[in-house]
Amino acid sequence: MRERLTEIIDKCRPLYTQGKVARYIPDLAKADPKILGASVSNLEGDIFSAGDRDFRFSMQSVSKLLSLALALELLGEETVFSHVGMNPIADSFNSIVRLEIDYPHIPHNPLINAGAIVIVSILPYESAKECFEAILNLSREMTGNYNLKINEKTFLSEKATGDRNRSLAFFMKSVGTLKGNIEDILDVYFRECSIEATTEDLAIMGATIASGGINPKTKKHVLSDKTCKILRSLMATCGMYNASGEFAVRVGVPAKSGVSGVILATVPHRGGIAVVGPPLDSKGNSVTGIRVLEDIVNEFNLRIL
Amino acid sequence: MRERLTEIIDKCRPLYTQGKVARYIPDLAKADPKILGASVSNLEGDIFSAGDRDFRFSMQSVSKLLSLALALELLGEETVFSHVGMNPIADSFNSIVRLEIDYPHIPHNPLINAGAIVIVSILPYESAKECFEAILNLSREMTGNYNLKINEKTFLSEKATGDRNRSLAFFMKSVGTLKGNIEDILDVYFRECSIEATTEDLAIMGATIASGGINPKTKKHVLSDKTCKILRSLMATCGMYNASGEFAVRVGVPAKSGVSGVILATVPHRGGIAVVGPPLDSKGNSVTGIRVLEDIVNEFNLRIL
Amino acid sequence: MRERLTEIIDKCRPLYTQGKVARYIPDLAKADPKILGASVSNLEGDIFSAGDRDFRFSMQSVSKLLSLALALELLGEETVFSHVGMNPIADSFNSIVRLEIDYPHIPHNPLINAGAIVIVSILPYESAKECFEAILNLSREMTGNYNLKINEKTFLSEKATGDRNRSLAFFMKSVGTLKGNIEDILDVYFRECSIEATTEDLAIMGATIASGGINPKTKKHVLSDKTCKILRSLMATCGMYNASGEFAVRVGVPAKSGVSGVILATVPHRGGIAVVGPPLDSKGNSVTGIRVLEDIVNEFNLRIL
Amino acid sequence: MRERLTEIIDKCRPLYTQGKVARYIPDLAKADPKILGASVSNLEGDIFSAGDRDFRFSMQSVSKLLSLALALELLGEETVFSHVGMNPIADSFNSIVRLEIDYPHIPHNPLINAGAIVIVSILPYESAKECFEAILNLSREMTGNYNLKINEKTFLSEKATGDRNRSLAFFMKSVGTLKGNIEDILDVYFRECSIEATTEDLAIMGATIASGGINPKTKKHVLSDKTCKILRSLMATCGMYNASGEFAVRVGVPAKSGVSGVILATVPHRGGIAVVGPPLDSKGNSVTGIRVLEDIVNEFNLRIL
Repeated sequence: MRERLTEIIDKCRPLYTQGKVARYIPDLAKADPKILGASVSNLEGDIFSAGDRDFRFSMQSVSKLLSLALALELLGEETVFSHVGMNPIADSFNSIVRLEIDYPHIPHNPLINAGAIVIVSILPYESAKECFEAILNLSREMTGNYNLKINEKTFLSEKATGDRNRSLAFFMKSVGTLKGNIEDILDVYFRECSIEATTEDLAIMGATIASGGINPKTKKHVLSDKTCKILRSLMATCGMYNASGEFAVRVGVPAKSGVSGVILATVPHRGGIAVVGPPLDSKGNSVTGIRVLEDIVNEFNLRIL
Repeated sequence: MRERLTEIIDKCRPLYTQGKVARYIPDLAKADPKILGASVSNLEGDIFSAGDRDFRFSMQSVSKLLSLALALELLGEETVFSHVGMNPIADSFNSIVRLEIDYPHIPHNPLINAGAIVIVSILPYESAKECFEAILNLSREMTGNYNLKINEKTFLSEKATGDRNRSLAFFMKSVGTLKGNIEDILDVYFRECSIEATTEDLAIMGATIASGGINPKTKKHVLSDKTCKILRSLMATCGMYNASGEFAVRVGVPAKSGVSGVILATVPHRGGIAVVGPPLDSKGNSVTGIRVLEDIVNEFNLRIL
Repeated sequence: MRERLTEIIDKCRPLYTQGKVARYIPDLAKADPKILGASVSNLEGDIFSAGDRDFRFSMQSVSKLLSLALALELLGEETVFSHVGMNPIADSFNSIVRLEIDYPHIPHNPLINAGAIVIVSILPYESAKECFEAILNLSREMTGNYNLKINEKTFLSEKATGDRNRSLAFFMKSVGTLKGNIEDILDVYFRECSIEATTEDLAIMGATIASGGINPKTKKHVLSDKTCKILRSLMATCGMYNASGEFAVRVGVPAKSGVSGVILATVPHRGGIAVVGPPLDSKGNSVTGIRVLEDIVNEFNLRIL
Repeated sequence: MRERLTEIIDKCRPLYTQGKVARYIPDLAKADPKILGASVSNLEGDIFSAGDRDFRFSMQSVSKLLSLALALELLGEETVFSHVGMNPIADSFNSIVRLEIDYPHIPHNPLINAGAIVIVSILPYESAKECFEAILNLSREMTGNYNLKINEKTFLSEKATGDRNRSLAFFMKSVGTLKGNIEDILDVYFRECSIEATTEDLAIMGATIASGGINPKTKKHVLSDKTCKILRSLMATCGMYNASGEFAVRVGVPAKSGVSGVILATVPHRGGIAVVGPPLDSKGNSVTGIRVLEDIVNEFNLRIL
């Protein structure tokens, strides 16, 4: 299996020229566009990796799954979805248009920026510090890597340039969708985006979601089956921003991407896959990553759609 | 199995008061809101039905799968998706806003009205008559029911009140997205919407899509595996209009709904399910139908997400 | 005065390269871009012209003033403005977005396409023929030129390519904003757009609006003072499409433009000005026309804002 | 004249029930809805007042004229209109939709919130303090009242609840439209909104704009003629938010309203009028104020459109 993965990586690496490394967060802009790595984990905890397996990247939007999972576990489905919707949109991940046009003025789903910010805001913690620690802890439980931590430089870079997220947050505050201290909420949001991981870490996280909440490495039951179903369903319909339909056609498994070039995919009852390749297409998804995923899914017959 | 289906139908039927029968097509408005029926077909051709199994309803938007399948078979994926997108939108199925705002001015996916109209327009036939006959023929091959035909009254009713669809078509013509004679194109579109079927017919159609194109009743190979993958992927992300994410969370299988109250679901490599219950929720999906599907999927462990 | 007008025309004519002749109606596309003419009429009926004073052009959107004036005279302000709004929009003259987004779904003002189509639809005539004759008659009364008639070729060209207007009309029919036979309504709309005139004709029309309804050439009282106030107010705020604010800053008099390159301006209690120059800017207004108007208004101290 | 004004005030005061006092700024919500006052100033400095002539209200959006005038005087028309547009929009004064949809992402005009915030941001001062002092100074020069100052409670109230304005500002910062420190810019913006005045003060300000920049009370030349032309033109087309067309039809003079219930009108080369009546209509304009203005304009024959 490792050999086939390596062949796929080698075949797809030259495609990096078709995308552009994210530039809006200065710290991400420095990434080497040729980086490409992939890991696959089954539910027994076997992991296969190829390419830049040691490359550490920030989770970015993949971390939206962490805060959503935590909110679902702590508050329940009904409460969570009274604050955000569950449906995909055609707008980009940081768009504000529909928040203003549609009534009620709540984000359409928890996997776009506005939605993830709301999710962070409803987590029942006393302080931003406590809140982030709970998220970080969940990231460790889901990956089985108890050394995960944020990249401080990335965090500061996000914080310094997060004006669009501030705009979204203040808009939602002005219409009553968001309560609390904006900078505290965004602090947690930027921190979760800055948690660093490798593809091996995220393949295990994907397998944990695939299995109904049991981490294949630690064997611990870290999420309920119901929460995992919701995560998988929203990844399938909203996980790849406004390219979720196209990704379903091409690859056909639930996935969530991040602007660091990561894509975490989950194959229900089978396992998890994580890829990283910094150059992005126009919708913010890794061009080499999608291609690698497509090949892995086809090679190992993992497509569910 | 039939008994469990019957229990589900009996349990869900009283929920009909939570929706409203579609009124914008006069012919649909007459439907009895208490109607509720469901059929399940496996890949071996076994069919189980309960409730109003003999109720004949028009396929409405479920027929969008027919013209899309035909276009994919005849023209190929690349050509088809140069004319329409593949991604879900948050707007209602007959919205024109994003067609005007976004560039290029092509429909976001083939399962909303604008997209289905474009698909009909690119089908390579000499006349509207020939074109519709090919669609009707495919509906017969996919259901294994060679008696399928349109309900003339429904067709005339759609034609008489289809002004929103005319608006969409003329808009697309004005921006070059659509070519050809509008009334001819809409004639085919309204006709496919008016094809009448029962839940048994559509359960077989769903199983055909699930199996990779082999009709379980006739054993004929009527669609390519690739076309079926595309249908399933677009059903999963765009099939329930702007409630596709919510449906994925609740039910977790690819499906396509129609305003006659029908929902056709497909369980990859397992089978097809069709339900009909005329009262609709605010997004145009059958309220009793969704509930029945949820129960069937849970009861028989068919969820894929 | 004629000399100063001629100097202005000569000075502005070379600017024709900054715009583009309208291409979406084939018949307009043939216009010589160097054409430039202007006429000024005071309330005593003195007319001064320069440049291409004999050039006959179709009135296009300037004719929206005719149907609006007729509707106001026949139905009264209250009825008219229950069918259309009175406010400017930032969208282009043929946009459909706000018709769908805003509630009620009525056009924002009678000087954009959707609004003018609604105005034509509410005129209280038995037939399209009668309706258009009333509009044509009013055009003759307002210009004092009883030979005005439509250019048949332009009319047929508009009719053949008017798909965007059909889209607007069918949309409005689908939401109940517009009643009646769409092709009949559009027939009248396309005909009024095709009425041919010279700048002299329209300078008198402008003076008629300026005077409170008395045609300075025929001395006939052809419109009420109240109707003229409404026309002037809507011209000032909505007359130059989505460049109405910019035009107010630059020129400072109420005006209405048409895609044939015409601009009709009215100086309350002073007189009328008409210019024609086919090349248009990106918002559909004559580039040379605006410049000539600016110079005339400054030269003769006609600015009201 | 004073008698006629008093009659008009008495006649219109009972209409206060048709509107609602602004609630989104807590400090404004306390205003007595029955308050109604009006002042008229000619170019010779004669002032006539009636009703609540001593009522002091915050200028709110009327202050947008101050920062715009200052920017035009200091930076010139060309620079100012490279940062904001000049055209009316159909959206509400605090909408963000078009800022995101349209390219370039600049506010459509300087009299909506986003536009006024940009104008404040480009004023060439070293500090927020200096910047506001220049604006306050201009307010004193334009009203001839050297005691004008802000209401601190209103300012703090605006600052505490100005989240929508923060959202607009951060959005514009994220797309490069706005530069500088957001809280500093908004501090100046909220301060100018909080400058308190009476209708007499603002009638003189209106007369100053009407005269081409000469304050009729102090005889000082405080603005250029060109700046006054621009102010009058933008007031005529954009001054009453998205009801500017309707106001032009009903009243027919350039005006600017504020959510404290104030309307400042200017009659070119004739004089200024200011009215205040706290209850607002759905678009944010004073219901009693519009009615009083309409009566004053008709009574004294001041309409220009």
